[in-house]
Amino acid sequence: MSRNESPPGHPLDLATTLEPVAAHRWRAHTSPDYANMVGPFGGVTAATMLRAPLVHPERLGEPVALTVNYCGPIQEGEYFVGARPVRTNRSTQHWLIEVSQDDEVAATATAVFATRRDTWSATEPRMPEVPPADAVAPAEALAFTSWPSRYDMRFVRGALALDDDASQAAETREHHDSVSTLWLRDTPSRTLDFVSLTGLCDAFFPRIYVRRPRRVPIGTVTMTVYFHADGAMLAANGDRPLLGNARAQQFRNGYFDQSAEMWTADGTLIATTHQAVYYRE
Amino acid sequence: MSRNESPPGHPLDLATTLEPVAAHRWRAHTSPDYANMVGPFGGVTAATMLRAPLVHPERLGEPVALTVNYCGPIQEGEYFVGARPVRTNRSTQHWLIEVSQDDEVAATATAVFATRRDTWSATEPRMPEVPPADAVAPAEALAFTSWPSRYDMRFVRGALALDDDASQAAETREHHDSVSTLWLRDTPSRTLDFVSLTGLCDAFFPRIYVRRPRRVPIGTVTMTVYFHADGAMLAANGDRPLLGNARAQQFRNGYFDQSAEMWTADGTLIATTHQAVYYRE
Repeated sequence: MSRNESPPGHPLDLATTLEPVAAHRWRAHTSPDYANMVGPFGGVTAATMLRAPLVHPERLGEPVALTVNYCGPIQEGEYFVGARPVRTNRSTQHWLIEVSQDDEVAATATAVFATRRDTWSATEPRMPEVPPADAVAPAEALAFTSWPSRYDMRFVRGALALDDDASQAAETREHHDSVSTLWLRDTPSRTLDFVSLTGLCDAFFPRIYVRRPRRVPIGTVTMTVYFHADGAMLAANGDRPLLGNARAQQFRNGYFDQSAEMWTADGTLIATTHQAVYYRE
Repeated sequence: MSRNESPPGHPLDLATTLEPVAAHRWRAHTSPDYANMVGPFGGVTAATMLRAPLVHPERLGEPVALTVNYCGPIQEGEYFVGARPVRTNRSTQHWLIEVSQDDEVAATATAVFATRRDTWSATEPRMPEVPPADAVAPAEALAFTSWPSRYDMRFVRGALALDDDASQAAETREHHDSVSTLWLRDTPSRTLDFVSLTGLCDAFFPRIYVRRPRRVPIGTVTMTVYFHADGAMLAANGDRPLLGNARAQQFRNGYFDQSAEMWTADGTLIATTHQAVYYRE
């Protein structure tokens, strides 16, 4: 397969398929390929929600920012996505997006779309110095949930090392930080676009699992993605892996936040992403 | 005035006043104290929007996350705020909030509220080492807009140095980064709460003005705040200044993102905040 083709029927495209049912409204369906512990992998829910304005006939420009709030689990089966432009300006457009199932809201999102012009540009953080992706071994798939098998993850630093042996006090194995640096891409490989980039932005494991290697209940409550590339830049990446760099900032009383940068192999910062995550200790 | 009292009729409280007009709906009014170049200071719009769920009779818990999308300018005068809980779970509640004026949407927001329990907690970034606030001189007020006069800003690093002298090429004076480290609080001083913290999170000047010291048109399109403190922790801070540390990550083709941490003087990370900003070059 060439670098610039997605396989027909890529699992991500099947999992984010929208079937129009009315103006501003589509039917979607959960996919076993992206199942998580409770409901679908949040990255695919976010990608499905972003797809609605992307396919909407009134769309202006391309995504600049997306924020998804996860309100409750989506049950296996069909669900509905609503999306409407609440304000369209000359070069920006603001969206409200909602996932509902059984007449209950399961997720909400807002998105900012815009047409961009060439301007002075600059990058402030430095890309981590890492070996190339093909010099790093892929992580083994996790046994307890299916969605990680849909991503090729090659950890340079901060691999997941969950230990379910409760007899060993987690405190004695606590890491001094929660940083992970890894190459990642879709499995099978797929040309980068806004849908896949959104999923990739949620593919960092919850930072508490890196900081304290034992499994506790967690759930992202809100995720934001800032897109720093247009569709042409994403397509030009082809299916090459991205370098992700993620870390938590503050864990306190049941919630923590984590942030990540997404780099192309040639050093372009194409997205920054942030989320707040519930945890139970 | 003691550290734990707000003056009656603090300008921020006047500027964020909500007058109930119907279920889930309030009337608000712009304030000349917080005027910006076009419409009100975005931090006060965000603070006013957060106040709606805070005063709503169905509120559960306290804010964990807020995202505000600025859709268009608010004209001087009255406007309306709508807020409704779209989903209430056992310990979390999700909100949609909207600002409208003349039947047009001017801003949307989502918020996550939650009840918190004491858990293992940890902070990953290090607070910058800085002199105490009273050893740093306050910045002079800006002439061209009023809202900065409502904040006491004491820059340790990265003060605003706008130069409107077009005869000097901005490129020759470009800084190598956009980091600002400053003590900041409301003017007059005011006991910290979720409303004032939200305003403070938007009080960092757009990073492009630090990186390239010339005035270009800018506008925040979306801002997110993650709250890492409960109301009691905020009240315990009294009116003491917070240390803010802000930086941009990527400037590209008309949009950049910036992030900041908000620390109490005793080293508690009480909020992290992110935004995407339009710029014209």
